Amino acid sequence: MAINYKKELEAAAKSMILVHNPDTLIKMIMRRIVQQIKVSHAGILLYDKDRDTYVLTVSRGPAGLKIPAGFTRMDKDNPLVSFFSQRKDKKLLGDGVLIYEEAKKLLRRKKLDAASRQLLRDALYQLEIFETVVCIPSYFRDDLLGILLLGKKRGNRKFWPDEIDFFVALTSDVAMAIRNAQLFRELELELERKHRLFIHTTIALAAAVEAKDPYTHGHTERVTDISLKIANLLNQKNKGALSEKFLENLHIASLLHDIGKIGIPEAILNKNSSLEEDERKKMQEHPVLGSIILQPIPELNEVILGVKYHHEKFDGSGYPEGLDNGRIPLIAAIISAADTFDAMTTDRPYRKALSKEEAIKEIGRISGKQLDPQIASALLEVYQKGEI
Amino acid sequence: MAINYKKELEAAAKSMILVHNPDTLIKMIMRRIVQQIKVSHAGILLYDKDRDTYVLTVSRGPAGLKIPAGFTRMDKDNPLVSFFSQRKDKKLLGDGVLIYEEAKKLLRRKKLDAASRQLLRDALYQLEIFETVVCIPSYFRDDLLGILLLGKKRGNRKFWPDEIDFFVALTSDVAMAIRNAQLFRELELELERKHRLFIHTTIALAAAVEAKDPYTHGHTERVTDISLKIANLLNQKNKGALSEKFLENLHIASLLHDIGKIGIPEAILNKNSSLEEDERKKMQEHPVLGSIILQPIPELNEVILGVKYHHEKFDGSGYPEGLDNGRIPLIAAIISAADTFDAMTTDRPYRKALSKEEAIKEIGRISGKQLDPQIASALLEVYQKGEI
Repeated sequence: MAINYKKELEAAAKSMILVHNPDTLIKMIMRRIVQQIKVSHAGILLYDKDRDTYVLTVSRGPAGLKIPAGFTRMDKDNPLVSFFSQRKDKKLLGDGVLIYEEAKKLLRRKKLDAASRQLLRDALYQLEIFETVVCIPSYFRDDLLGILLLGKKRGNRKFWPDEIDFFVALTSDVAMAIRNAQLFRELELELERKHRLFIHTTIALAAAVEAKDPYTHGHTERVTDISLKIANLLNQKNKGALSEKFLENLHIASLLHDIGKIGIPEAILNKNSSLEEDERKKMQEHPVLGSIILQPIPELNEVILGVKYHHEKFDGSGYPEGLDNGRIPLIAAIISAADTFDAMTTDRPYRKALSKEEAIKEIGRISGKQLDPQIASALLEVYQKGEI
Repeated sequence: MAINYKKELEAAAKSMILVHNPDTLIKMIMRRIVQQIKVSHAGILLYDKDRDTYVLTVSRGPAGLKIPAGFTRMDKDNPLVSFFSQRKDKKLLGDGVLIYEEAKKLLRRKKLDAASRQLLRDALYQLEIFETVVCIPSYFRDDLLGILLLGKKRGNRKFWPDEIDFFVALTSDVAMAIRNAQLFRELELELERKHRLFIHTTIALAAAVEAKDPYTHGHTERVTDISLKIANLLNQKNKGALSEKFLENLHIASLLHDIGKIGIPEAILNKNSSLEEDERKKMQEHPVLGSIILQPIPELNEVILGVKYHHEKFDGSGYPEGLDNGRIPLIAAIISAADTFDAMTTDRPYRKALSKEEAIKEIGRISGKQLDPQIASALLEVYQKGEI
């Protein structure tokens, strides 16, 4: 045995703590044990809180092992689980570790009450099923977190006390690392849940505002879809030039780009003919109204730029500020292209919809005038790929 | 030295990994070292990513230690930091540990190039400032995460190789645990940020909808405030009977309770006299319209109940479904009480506002009729405490 247990333990602890996927972690550790210690196989039986049951993960060593079907999960009343969770081990075993050969001797020699004898016998039968010779439990406070199961050493040699000590320390580390990984995973899931909630609520509220305008059914959803596709294409061409943060902001800004319409009188939104000059002026206030609504939210700074400037044009002929090339924020320029394309392909009170083919031709024509040519060409490419 | 280093290390690792506040963690470990190993003091110099500098945390032992002012932070060009981060130690020190006495001997005996000699001399001067006799660095990949600084042992005795080994392992564990805690903290902050973003966006959009109704300025904010105060009072009386989740849902539902007004024609919202029967009917659709808007969001199930039923009354005389006592969800009953109180205390087209005192009397009068008596009495108590 040329293993430096202390070094091995340090290395294991070091590699474990920053792995935050519990499954990866367990498999990593099992592989390590089997490779370094040369046992036939190793397994870890781990408590799964969600299902209130113990789940077995096994790594095969050179000798291999067949786990009987139906034994990858164990209920709390499984004899091996209850042997350790009832902590009868304190009475039966000195150091908490269950070693098959020694337990057999115990059964033969020691005077045990009937219940303890039965419990131990049932637990040992489980060890036989899993061809396990050593079992090491790990607790967090009083709860049994898991059990490490070890198969035979090469040549069926006895485990040294040093080795048992090593496994006890390792099991404790593993259990803690797994607990940590689980906490981490829970936090990540909560974050994903919160993000979904935010996006879905924004979608619902934007849709409610959109419903006020009878001419824009499904518009927000389509603009969001096209904007994100343009951004992804730009990102592919420039190898991740757009950050995750930008893409998230573009997503939110696309959903909210017309939110200012909530402040436009229904009489204007519902008019089924071309707008009068003063009505058009009023209608053109919606980007600024949208930015005013979102102004109190500091985290939405970039989103607000997208909302406020999505009707600016590349040649400076847009509104509200008549910004031109280079001064229009990228987030607004992308939404503008998507918005323009979607407006062309849907019916309006004063004109019929263009086909997508016709609209794309029109996009080509206004590229470099109304639209940023780079973004217009990305939109063209998205269309050519059949994505819209 | 009657310390079982292995056991000590296990215990330390076990306690560390689940502490996710880096500051707490560092102080805990420092205290442990000072108490168990009986050194005059111990310090840890830890990299602070946000400020790109190293921060010193020190625990005093029985002998105490004064840290010179201005030395709680060290830049990357501090000689001690650069000694370890340049990893000159590989050349100068066998095992990476800097021991004051041995380094002094090295300076006297060994042939060193001028640069190494200067670097070591400068580093040792730092050790003198901190009355440190042993320094143990810890790396993650190639980055210097931190340095453990140890003061003198009692009676100025030499550290044993066993002790140094222990500290090397401990430092490695500490650095990993701290890295883990930092990652955890970042995730938690991100979660808080996301929650704030969600709440603030909901507030902004609810305010925009509210602005459509000229008679309800600030209504949403006040109803939310009153609802949460009622819930907190109920919680105090019943020792946390309401879960965090419920309080969060109540918060969101209060913000969104009138969101359905987005679907009510402006002509009705803006009317400055009492509503006709058909207009009243239309207006009374707003809770159901609100629930329809939010329906696509499964996470908002309980929120939707609050929105849909906030105009139900305890005696079954409310709308949309005429639910009575026991069938009205708690979340809706709380919003209902807050909404009723706020409506009484603000001007409406058809009547002037009541004073708060008059409104509370009225609340008492309709308790057990329109309002759930338990909630009405909680509202009364909130008022008596001067919270509203």
